[in-house]
Amino acid sequence: MTRVAIEKRVLSENDAEAAVIRQRLRREGTLCLNLIGSPGAGKTALLERTLERLSSENAVAVLTGDIQTDCDARRLMRYGHPVRQITTAGACHLDARMVARHLEGWPGHLDLLLIENVGNLVCPTSYDLGEDAKVVLLSVTEGEQKPLKYPGIFKKADLMILTKTDLLPYVSFDLERVRTNARLIHPAIEIIETSATTGAGLDEWIGWLAARAAGKQAQAEREVEHAGR
Amino acid sequence: MTRVAIEKRVLSENDAEAAVIRQRLRREGTLCLNLIGSPGAGKTALLERTLERLSSENAVAVLTGDIQTDCDARRLMRYGHPVRQITTAGACHLDARMVARHLEGWPGHLDLLLIENVGNLVCPTSYDLGEDAKVVLLSVTEGEQKPLKYPGIFKKADLMILTKTDLLPYVSFDLERVRTNARLIHPAIEIIETSATTGAGLDEWIGWLAARAAGKQAQAEREVEHAGR
Repeated sequence: MTRVAIEKRVLSENDAEAAVIRQRLRREGTLCLNLIGSPGAGKTALLERTLERLSSENAVAVLTGDIQTDCDARRLMRYGHPVRQITTAGACHLDARMVARHLEGWPGHLDLLLIENVGNLVCPTSYDLGEDAKVVLLSVTEGEQKPLKYPGIFKKADLMILTKTDLLPYVSFDLERVRTNARLIHPAIEIIETSATTGAGLDEWIGWLAARAAGKQAQAEREVEHAGR
Repeated sequence: MTRVAIEKRVLSENDAEAAVIRQRLRREGTLCLNLIGSPGAGKTALLERTLERLSSENAVAVLTGDIQTDCDARRLMRYGHPVRQITTAGACHLDARMVARHLEGWPGHLDLLLIENVGNLVCPTSYDLGEDAKVVLLSVTEGEQKPLKYPGIFKKADLMILTKTDLLPYVSFDLERVRTNARLIHPAIEIIETSATTGAGLDEWIGWLAARAAGKQAQAEREVEHAGR
């Protein structure tokens, strides 16, 4: 078997596993987001501020992926929501099997499942985890060319979150140009500008989450009603 | 053939190709460095400042890898040294074959060949390009845990260049902790702190380069002398 054939088989096995996860989350009305960004893009910091703002009435959980260490899970556990670390032991991305394994025995219903992928702007793009949407994080310290240089993830993400906007006065980063570049790759991409340090943009992000979660919940209820007729 | 067997074969084919490159560069006394870091770690900015400081008497050339675009090559060509862009069209790392192909027909002797890998802290680590040393770039906006979370590259790199130190007043980043973390993973790793914006640390980096290049040149001359006896 050639390398390309093996890659295709791996991806198709992954897609089958992801479809099972997607079906389960759809039945349960759980919104699932797959957060992707470079190492240091601010994924964990955004999740900390998100968990802090979601009250304990929101049934939210986090799966956080890293090659090594459980630093991120320990940071995230402080907010009283369930968090599980996935350690990939070298792999450069999460795959659906890892997610499925870590969903086993999860307690009760979830409104929202946030998956923090391994820090990598390339490889996680190819692996469906059964999510409703991919969200790409790009920090203002990384430069405006990134959507052009790493088009795969910007094509697939519904939302681009610009992070670390508090650093804008100290770096050369043109907000208008990054928006243009992202939309060249994906005209319909949504964009939210945030700073986990100052809190800027977090209300907009939480609002986006809430609207998406409500849509998912309504869909699940319609399907239950339809099945019950 | 299993996926693992395929991966092993790909890596062993790559190693064979890298050995040919290494032999050629050794014969010619060319120091070759493989620069690895996240997207936005500041690889291109460091190379710009490096090319600017190396006089035209230094025979230096750059191969710069990206998934898409030739933005980086265009930035780097302004300094009067030969630059070639390697576009990987989706691949998350450079491999030795891409390097070999782009070395073909390179004009004359080189003292120094700088290879800027694809922005990725994971995958490029596994692919030998025939270099004398890997150099890992870590920006101070990425956090001090990176050596622990991405140990592979920090184990293999001879040198860690901390970049964007001009941003230290505006971010929470503990220099002492990152040094400790890097040395936990690789006790002998060398560390240079730089800012492409202020120029801090660049003399130290150029000095490191010059010492390494002189060592490589002296080795090549000894071997020619030995062969001539």
